[in-house]
Amino acid sequence: MEAAEKANVSTPLIKRLDLSKGDKFDTMLQGVLDVANLPDPIGKVTFANKLDEGLDLYRVTCPIGVLLVIFESRPEVIANITALAIKSANAVILKGGKESFHSFAAISRLVGEALSGTEIPPGAVQLIESRQEVSDLLKQDRYIDLVIPRGSNELVRSIKSNTKIPVLGHADGLCSVYVHGDADVDMAVRIVIDSKTNYAAACNAAEGLLVQRCALKSHLPSLAKALIDAGVSLKVTPEIGEALKEAGVAGTGSATIMSAEEKDFETEFLSFTIAVAAVEEVDEAIKHINAHSSKHTDSIVTASKEIADKFLNGVDSSGVFWNASTRFSDGFRYGFGTEVGISTSKIHARGPVGLEGLTCYQYQLRGSGQVAADYVGAGGKKEFKHEQLDM
Amino acid sequence: MEAAEKANVSTPLIKRLDLSKGDKFDTMLQGVLDVANLPDPIGKVTFANKLDEGLDLYRVTCPIGVLLVIFESRPEVIANITALAIKSANAVILKGGKESFHSFAAISRLVGEALSGTEIPPGAVQLIESRQEVSDLLKQDRYIDLVIPRGSNELVRSIKSNTKIPVLGHADGLCSVYVHGDADVDMAVRIVIDSKTNYAAACNAAEGLLVQRCALKSHLPSLAKALIDAGVSLKVTPEIGEALKEAGVAGTGSATIMSAEEKDFETEFLSFTIAVAAVEEVDEAIKHINAHSSKHTDSIVTASKEIADKFLNGVDSSGVFWNASTRFSDGFRYGFGTEVGISTSKIHARGPVGLEGLTCYQYQLRGSGQVAADYVGAGGKKEFKHEQLDM
Repeated sequence: MEAAEKANVSTPLIKRLDLSKGDKFDTMLQGVLDVANLPDPIGKVTFANKLDEGLDLYRVTCPIGVLLVIFESRPEVIANITALAIKSANAVILKGGKESFHSFAAISRLVGEALSGTEIPPGAVQLIESRQEVSDLLKQDRYIDLVIPRGSNELVRSIKSNTKIPVLGHADGLCSVYVHGDADVDMAVRIVIDSKTNYAAACNAAEGLLVQRCALKSHLPSLAKALIDAGVSLKVTPEIGEALKEAGVAGTGSATIMSAEEKDFETEFLSFTIAVAAVEEVDEAIKHINAHSSKHTDSIVTASKEIADKFLNGVDSSGVFWNASTRFSDGFRYGFGTEVGISTSKIHARGPVGLEGLTCYQYQLRGSGQVAADYVGAGGKKEFKHEQLDM
Repeated sequence: MEAAEKANVSTPLIKRLDLSKGDKFDTMLQGVLDVANLPDPIGKVTFANKLDEGLDLYRVTCPIGVLLVIFESRPEVIANITALAIKSANAVILKGGKESFHSFAAISRLVGEALSGTEIPPGAVQLIESRQEVSDLLKQDRYIDLVIPRGSNELVRSIKSNTKIPVLGHADGLCSVYVHGDADVDMAVRIVIDSKTNYAAACNAAEGLLVQRCALKSHLPSLAKALIDAGVSLKVTPEIGEALKEAGVAGTGSATIMSAEEKDFETEFLSFTIAVAAVEEVDEAIKHINAHSSKHTDSIVTASKEIADKFLNGVDSSGVFWNASTRFSDGFRYGFGTEVGISTSKIHARGPVGLEGLTCYQYQLRGSGQVAADYVGAGGKKEFKHEQLDM
């Protein structure tokens, strides 16, 4: 603590770093126990097929291998990630924010001591300290199987462009809410306010609001007033600006109404600002979102199941919500217990990633001396049975 | 044909390019019909969780998006890949081997005509011609979601190092067979011969043979004789060379016995050559394979389930086989109907990849106006129910 104060670390950061503050330590401990209590993700048979008599194929979940996890400076994170890695039988190399290095080193030493009494090799969990080590390790695509960067967009982007190792994570959280003309106004207001203001710095907070053109009189004024009352500034298209002027809605205090530029619809404000535009129909909303969003989470508010289905099937994001806040996009809320991160990739795991995202699978074939040459396609006459086996 | 002959294309290649040869056209047609008859891979609910009353979460399979597929010159391949892409609702950009460009263009025109009578936009399947186009497209990681290179190791390697887009495929097929001391000798011989000689140019052919040290007298001579009789050259460690000399096994004709260098255990011969070494125990076999193989497919021959389980759980390859030829590692043999390719990656799809590998999923949340702020963890008191829903 004193060292942190001397090093001119800001007070809110010091608070975040102090593990003895409030119930932080107990929460950390509970997090580890929660992971320990999750079902074992390894060795599960997810597909089984009898190829022939005495020739059975099983798809079995297994660890990915060696993970490189780069994370922020909250000291409790190292305990959670270590627990997840051990539970999923992966080896992990950890690099945390430099402000907490001494806490990390102490926790890491304890982890090593605890592991020494088990069958897990002590080298399965390793802590590194410097950025140079990270950049050296990013070159080791033969030995490291997955990189998980948690932290700023810049960090994630820089890692993605500096490695051939697959990266699990998300650089941006550009989420939107689309309010259809038939939406209940109060419901739309609640969802938009929660999506924007519940935790504006989160990746699942809304950065854009789309309103159906036919709702510019019926819905837009209430939405805009509620946002301004909550302290949110609006960046609006000329059409929205005009509609607000007609409805007599104006900014107050720090919550202003400004003209939006094109880039505002691709900006992650992470603050009390939202970009607002009108669209003619749900199709245009889908098109706008697919063109501008980061494929994280987008929500529609509508009374119509048909319109909702169109939106849910048309929007190419990891989370597509109907009549719910974008803020529900989260591993804990989804019921995964804990999350490794949120992925906006469309390969491997997508959306909030739990333990399952730290596993892959292998095909185990259990035979009794069979050779391919006896079967059709490889020179022989025998036909495969291909009967699904009971798992 | 005449153009091909004029362009000095080799006769075996001309045969492979000629779609009117034998039953090639009918096989191609059947392949397309087979894909059409596969179950629809899109829109399947793979996880469903009631977060709260009227707040239901569904994980639903969806297409990946835009695929870039680079493939060899066999003209039937374009029909198969197009069928797979359409079936999985992905858009696809196709680049085939230049020798078949005119066939590809003709098939592609027919695909376009067929699609024009459907709801599928004609641009969903596009053919490109030049390498320059490929290298331009490899930079479009914002618009292309997955690259699938099929072809030579050099092609796959060069693509992997020239794009940020995820790549599904395999550069190497370095497979091994390990013969444990308790193996039935005849079974071991059949499996080794099939793994090596059934189709030596395939990625699932064995390139390495490991024999337990205690079996150098009981098993090795039969294995070596059978290989040499089948025309296979052996590259052997000094220990193996010594054992063969003692047993009086020598090369004949083109099937020679040579000293192995370290690099022979990491060489994909793709021909009638195999590298042979002795290991003390199954643990050493596992270590050797994990250090040298390309994580494709490795097989153990043993009478012991316990030893087999150790091998299957210890070898980090996409296929781990017990008492079966490595040649079974194949989408058709696994019962997937058809395969897009074989992946040695541990992220996304692994091993032979069927239609499933061309899908991802999104989380659809269907609510009734819920906001996060009402729930624990985001400022409220409501608890999540997290009850698994019937799918």
